[in-house]
Amino acid sequence: MIIIGEGINSSRKAVKKALDEKDALVICNEARAQIEAGAQFLDLNCALAKNGEPEDMKWLIETVQRAATVPLCIDSPDPNVVTGALKLCKEKPIINSITAQKERYSSILPLIAKEHCGVVALTMDEDRMPHTAEERFKCAKNLYNIMKREDIPDEDIFFDPLVRPISSEPGQAIELLKAIPMIKKLGEVKVVCGISNISFGLPRRSLVNSLFLSMAINAGLDGALIDPLDKNMIAAIRTTEALLGKDNYCMNFIQGHRKGLF
Amino acid sequence: MIIIGEGINSSRKAVKKALDEKDALVICNEARAQIEAGAQFLDLNCALAKNGEPEDMKWLIETVQRAATVPLCIDSPDPNVVTGALKLCKEKPIINSITAQKERYSSILPLIAKEHCGVVALTMDEDRMPHTAEERFKCAKNLYNIMKREDIPDEDIFFDPLVRPISSEPGQAIELLKAIPMIKKLGEVKVVCGISNISFGLPRRSLVNSLFLSMAINAGLDGALIDPLDKNMIAAIRTTEALLGKDNYCMNFIQGHRKGLF
Repeated sequence: MIIIGEGINSSRKAVKKALDEKDALVICNEARAQIEAGAQFLDLNCALAKNGEPEDMKWLIETVQRAATVPLCIDSPDPNVVTGALKLCKEKPIINSITAQKERYSSILPLIAKEHCGVVALTMDEDRMPHTAEERFKCAKNLYNIMKREDIPDEDIFFDPLVRPISSEPGQAIELLKAIPMIKKLGEVKVVCGISNISFGLPRRSLVNSLFLSMAINAGLDGALIDPLDKNMIAAIRTTEALLGKDNYCMNFIQGHRKGLF
Repeated sequence: MIIIGEGINSSRKAVKKALDEKDALVICNEARAQIEAGAQFLDLNCALAKNGEPEDMKWLIETVQRAATVPLCIDSPDPNVVTGALKLCKEKPIINSITAQKERYSSILPLIAKEHCGVVALTMDEDRMPHTAEERFKCAKNLYNIMKREDIPDEDIFFDPLVRPISSEPGQAIELLKAIPMIKKLGEVKVVCGISNISFGLPRRSLVNSLFLSMAINAGLDGALIDPLDKNMIAAIRTTEALLGKDNYCMNFIQGHRKGLF
């Protein structure tokens, strides 16, 4: 399971403040804490900061890379931001994200093909969010064909089938779980999700998120955008991998327990 | 999900002591606590008590039924114990258990057919524990045919595909999860499991048990023998049912949270 740490996001008050004030210490600490907890990628989002996304993203990348050489997930739909970001990343990044909307993929895909980086492709058509597994699959197939025309290799493609809350649509967890194996049949592509949307509007969100993550791993999920400092999430990943026989003699599970990761 | 409370078992020190001393208060409190936490059946096991299983089982049934009129799960392989027990149960009980070993089913099945009670059928042949999903299914099929010859209706049949520890056999969770839908294709039968064996030999057993229970519910499990006082288990059941769209507007989940059941 690929863990993408979601902590450095300008929608979080402390992160926005650090971005606005260019407080490198807060960002570096956040980066280190997530890596220590198990994040293999760090998502960087500065959409809401005041200095402008291109400038903030550059500062964020440079700052995080002073703390650790970890691959980054550049969370922006803006080709200008992506272009600037790609020049600075020391490890192969993932661009998060494109959709099947022409204005969301047409300028970014050539950059991705040229720079050989990864891309998160949201299964979303022209302003329409998917509801069923079938709609998610159809959109993924469409996007897959578009990406193949740009010669993007399967290994660089991360589909995100868009998690939606069960509180308003009770069938959404099932549809998402069904969509995962359908999308994976397109090729050697990966499926990743932001998890926390599933529990929007409910109490005990960490509990709901962790059980849903476990189910999604069982359905074939390759990676997730999560808060790695939420011990329930790391517990769900390590325990589920042990249960599915993907952890030799449960050593990763036992080590995580001993290290206090969950 | 049918929750069978496993608390009244003579392998637990406090329960054995209460049985030996015929301490009704301890047993009644244990029964009430399990029911309050969500148990719909109470398993009664007195194999290790000193007064002899037939006498102890009678006392146990009478004692528990003074505390609550709850259906019981008579946990004994002994036809004498079962015969005595059946006369005392006020609600339709489940006999736990038979196997595909002739001496384990031949005297008990006629009693079950005559008294119209439920039966837990372990997928175990002549002294051989199953390893693969296929072995579990074959044994269940054999047992199903045997039970059908005794005219036991599908609704009274609870197959238990026998959970085995992942610490010594890493593939056992997957085999168990595969076996559940296979067995359910035999008819309108139910599949139930004792869960805790999955985590034997590991730390954090409650965590492992609860995530495995969630996966098993997702695979079609109808009921489980669990400790309902373990809040992780109730959390797993209510949350999984909400995620699978089996809980209208998550009301059961939200109520369980408000009541402090997890």
